Amino acid sequence: MGKYAIGLDYGTLSVRALLINVETREEVGSYIYEYPHGSMETELPCGKKLPINWALQHPADYVEGLEKTIRGVVSENHIPPEEVIGIGVDFTSSTILPVLSDKTPLCELPEFKEEPNAYVKLWKHHGAEKQAQYIDRICKERGEEWLSLYGGKVSSEWMLPKVLETVEMAPEVYRKADRFMEAMDWITWILTGEESRSACAAGYKMFYHHEKGYPGKEFFKALNPMMENFVEEKLEAPIKGVGECAGYLTKEMADRLGLKEGTPVATAIIDAHASVPACGIDGPGKMLIIMGTSSCHMIQSEKEEGIPGNCGIVKDGMIPGYFGYESGQCCVGDQFAWFVKNCVPEKYAVDAREKGMNLHTYLTEKCKDLEPGESGLVALDWFNGVRSPLMDFNLTGMILGMNLQTKPEEIYLALLESTAYGTRMIMENFENHGVEVNEIVVAGGIANKNPLLMQIYADVCNKTVRICGTEQSGALGSAILGIIAAGEEVSGYQSAQDVIAAFGRLQDVKYVPDAKRVAAYEKLYQEYTTLFDYFGKGENDVMKRLMEGRK
Amino acid sequence: MGKYAIGLDYGTLSVRALLINVETREEVGSYIYEYPHGSMETELPCGKKLPINWALQHPADYVEGLEKTIRGVVSENHIPPEEVIGIGVDFTSSTILPVLSDKTPLCELPEFKEEPNAYVKLWKHHGAEKQAQYIDRICKERGEEWLSLYGGKVSSEWMLPKVLETVEMAPEVYRKADRFMEAMDWITWILTGEESRSACAAGYKMFYHHEKGYPGKEFFKALNPMMENFVEEKLEAPIKGVGECAGYLTKEMADRLGLKEGTPVATAIIDAHASVPACGIDGPGKMLIIMGTSSCHMIQSEKEEGIPGNCGIVKDGMIPGYFGYESGQCCVGDQFAWFVKNCVPEKYAVDAREKGMNLHTYLTEKCKDLEPGESGLVALDWFNGVRSPLMDFNLTGMILGMNLQTKPEEIYLALLESTAYGTRMIMENFENHGVEVNEIVVAGGIANKNPLLMQIYADVCNKTVRICGTEQSGALGSAILGIIAAGEEVSGYQSAQDVIAAFGRLQDVKYVPDAKRVAAYEKLYQEYTTLFDYFGKGENDVMKRLMEGRK
Repeated sequence: MGKYAIGLDYGTLSVRALLINVETREEVGSYIYEYPHGSMETELPCGKKLPINWALQHPADYVEGLEKTIRGVVSENHIPPEEVIGIGVDFTSSTILPVLSDKTPLCELPEFKEEPNAYVKLWKHHGAEKQAQYIDRICKERGEEWLSLYGGKVSSEWMLPKVLETVEMAPEVYRKADRFMEAMDWITWILTGEESRSACAAGYKMFYHHEKGYPGKEFFKALNPMMENFVEEKLEAPIKGVGECAGYLTKEMADRLGLKEGTPVATAIIDAHASVPACGIDGPGKMLIIMGTSSCHMIQSEKEEGIPGNCGIVKDGMIPGYFGYESGQCCVGDQFAWFVKNCVPEKYAVDAREKGMNLHTYLTEKCKDLEPGESGLVALDWFNGVRSPLMDFNLTGMILGMNLQTKPEEIYLALLESTAYGTRMIMENFENHGVEVNEIVVAGGIANKNPLLMQIYADVCNKTVRICGTEQSGALGSAILGIIAAGEEVSGYQSAQDVIAAFGRLQDVKYVPDAKRVAAYEKLYQEYTTLFDYFGKGENDVMKRLMEGRK
Repeated sequence: MGKYAIGLDYGTLSVRALLINVETREEVGSYIYEYPHGSMETELPCGKKLPINWALQHPADYVEGLEKTIRGVVSENHIPPEEVIGIGVDFTSSTILPVLSDKTPLCELPEFKEEPNAYVKLWKHHGAEKQAQYIDRICKERGEEWLSLYGGKVSSEWMLPKVLETVEMAPEVYRKADRFMEAMDWITWILTGEESRSACAAGYKMFYHHEKGYPGKEFFKALNPMMENFVEEKLEAPIKGVGECAGYLTKEMADRLGLKEGTPVATAIIDAHASVPACGIDGPGKMLIIMGTSSCHMIQSEKEEGIPGNCGIVKDGMIPGYFGYESGQCCVGDQFAWFVKNCVPEKYAVDAREKGMNLHTYLTEKCKDLEPGESGLVALDWFNGVRSPLMDFNLTGMILGMNLQTKPEEIYLALLESTAYGTRMIMENFENHGVEVNEIVVAGGIANKNPLLMQIYADVCNKTVRICGTEQSGALGSAILGIIAAGEEVSGYQSAQDVIAAFGRLQDVKYVPDAKRVAAYEKLYQEYTTLFDYFGKGENDVMKRLMEGRK
């Protein structure tokens, strides 16, 4: 009899089910379901217009997707249902919805069909910017110490600003809601019939601490008197760490999905964090960078340590048994895209087209023979502000060293390098606080598209860089958690670490630091740090003053 | 009987004669002659190859041009020769040649036809870079105080490095030469039969001081023992100020040119400096900017004052009766051209082409509604180093304040603004040393092409900006000097100042500072000065360190 696990990866526009053969460790197949409602950013299904910066989803899409993808991947691959030994779930976050105690989303009640706040607020819903700033101010006024574990600044993408927005805009929705759920926890609740909360989402997105719990009543009351008992009334449920079993498939859901009743379901995990086990990271020392428009840096440690500018520390938040640290860099691919859109001359664009190359590849090709420092440029990667370690979003980009011979590809290279310096700054911030970094692992499309960038990271950070071995790292990570949830007796693996080591995947390629380039970049990094301190730490607040003058 | 004056403007590739009607003050006509040999940068007429960075000319082109242009402009406009009352000459500088005592250029002797050092070394001949650095070092070792009047750094474009290059490379040419001449002084010598030296060229390009004379024998000996008596043997001749009569047309030349014997010939002036009288600047207070790829700032004062970073102070150097100060900005139009060549996206290039606009106009159009500070950018105009006031050519450009919304036209505007800040820095350097600036006058093509740039200069400097009223400012300036040379009795003008006031031309348009924009730019200029000091005055020598790493 075969053994299979399913990883469900709930993304921004679709959900994917990945089927893993537990014996051969192969990815057998996957099935994707696109949400019919997508990300609703202009209007509700009823035609009601939404304010700008909103992004909602319809929870029915998630449930429909659950059934379609699982049935799809199982039937397409001719797997007997009883051979599925575990299910894992990862989800975008903080993606939240108000529900009744029977799990019914409020947006499905007739009286709330036209109420935007009754729908799912997607992670990238930015309607609660004002509320985030308000919460931030209250935290600081009250001296809420836990905020320092979150990088010292409340993001509008987190759960609480989204809930406070509902309290202020649609108090009747807040009153009616029995629970405010992370969508990931709502899905495991539906699957298992047992309500629980993932430590990952609660920790990184709702200020939960494994010893101290959520923030206190007085804090919530200060935000809004209606919220005084928010935790007790709308939130409290058992917290389960990543790697724990959330429960077992109910008969009803087993029938609906075509699987066996009692199949273990793993505690859900945030999509980005699922890449940690997917890359085979089973403990401290390996820093994972999810590199995209921005970057997210994740690392494990046995200790809990407040690190300035770190964005979150959660026990069992990424893999079981460790504190998972998350830092972030605001602007990576976004900065390269800005350059390509705004600063590449026609001659290059025409030449690239004739050669059938996109501009990123074309520019990278042109600068691959440039040695570190050869173009005499250094840049600050602050085009979108600085997350870690400064947590200052009023900082801006800078490029220095141009002369009349400076070429576009040299500026592009300086921008690539600047993101590597920014990552080294984050890495050293970990190391300076006792969180060791021995190796770097990169996941995300850029890692495969730009080998030069990977070599630059290796040389700037003086660490070997390895690349995630799957394009479905979210789904693979959640499938791994599904196998762990199945337990030793069924899976045949003694520990979570063994499962991660066996199923996590890296590519064979290794970007090894080159001693000569390391030495050259060491000098440039020293220049970067001097400029970083000068412009970022108050010596010259020119960027902030210039920003104030902006319209 | 009519009265006319001729201004001869010897440029880099051609000479122009401009005919002025002294009674109506009109520009009657002009005639251009292109040098057949042009600027010889790769080989001599005999085919002998030249080293890189060389730029030579053939002196026969100048004499041929003298005849062609004067005969051309006189005959085309049907002027009786006796009605020409004066001739003025302006010339590129330092453009030098070795000649015999009978005025014969050494390159015309059979034995030197293949010797590059026997030809004219054009102002932009950069072969003597090594010699300039050597002279610079010797000056500093010997504590030659006069160097401080020249901005503290010897330029390879000046006369002495070019002569020292000849001493080192072709000592036989040095020995054979009876005189080393500025080409302008060679032309007035040919015209008048009397050798003299213009205070303008001697002062700005050969370290001559009206009281102290040339540097001393020991200095020249230290450069090369052969040069100990350089001044006495090869240079000494009466020095004549701008506005003085150099002499009178010889019979021979009068016959050759079709003019009257005895016609007064003005002491020659450097081409850029001829724009001072051409713009009607007859005394202190008006700062003239010759704006091109780089900018040259000229102003008059009754006092001689050492100003750090100023490039030259010469008595009677630009107009009679005043000390003429010259400062410079390395990179103005060059910087805008760099941007247009390297940093404008295809979309803009296509759109501009469809609209039939060049990219400068297109970008300027796009940023004309941007208020000061609106884009949140500030740049340092150092793409080619800094002449005044830092005299540091190891500094480089910087742009600061970009975010993901930053558009190309905003960066272009920041580059325009940065050159205005650089000019204000130079203006304040004058003012801080007691040289008053009340108004700014701009000459050069950019002044007419970019009204937005002129308004920015007015607002940044908080001075009214006026524009040169002729496109032939060199030729008009020298014609004015021709009228002055004719003397009161012939010209009918009592003083040089009266001639300048009558014949100098400004356009009617005035760019008047706008109080709101002045206030906004005041803040931005303060940011510029802070960055100027930080990067330019040794607080952070990152630019120099990066330059050392360049190949």
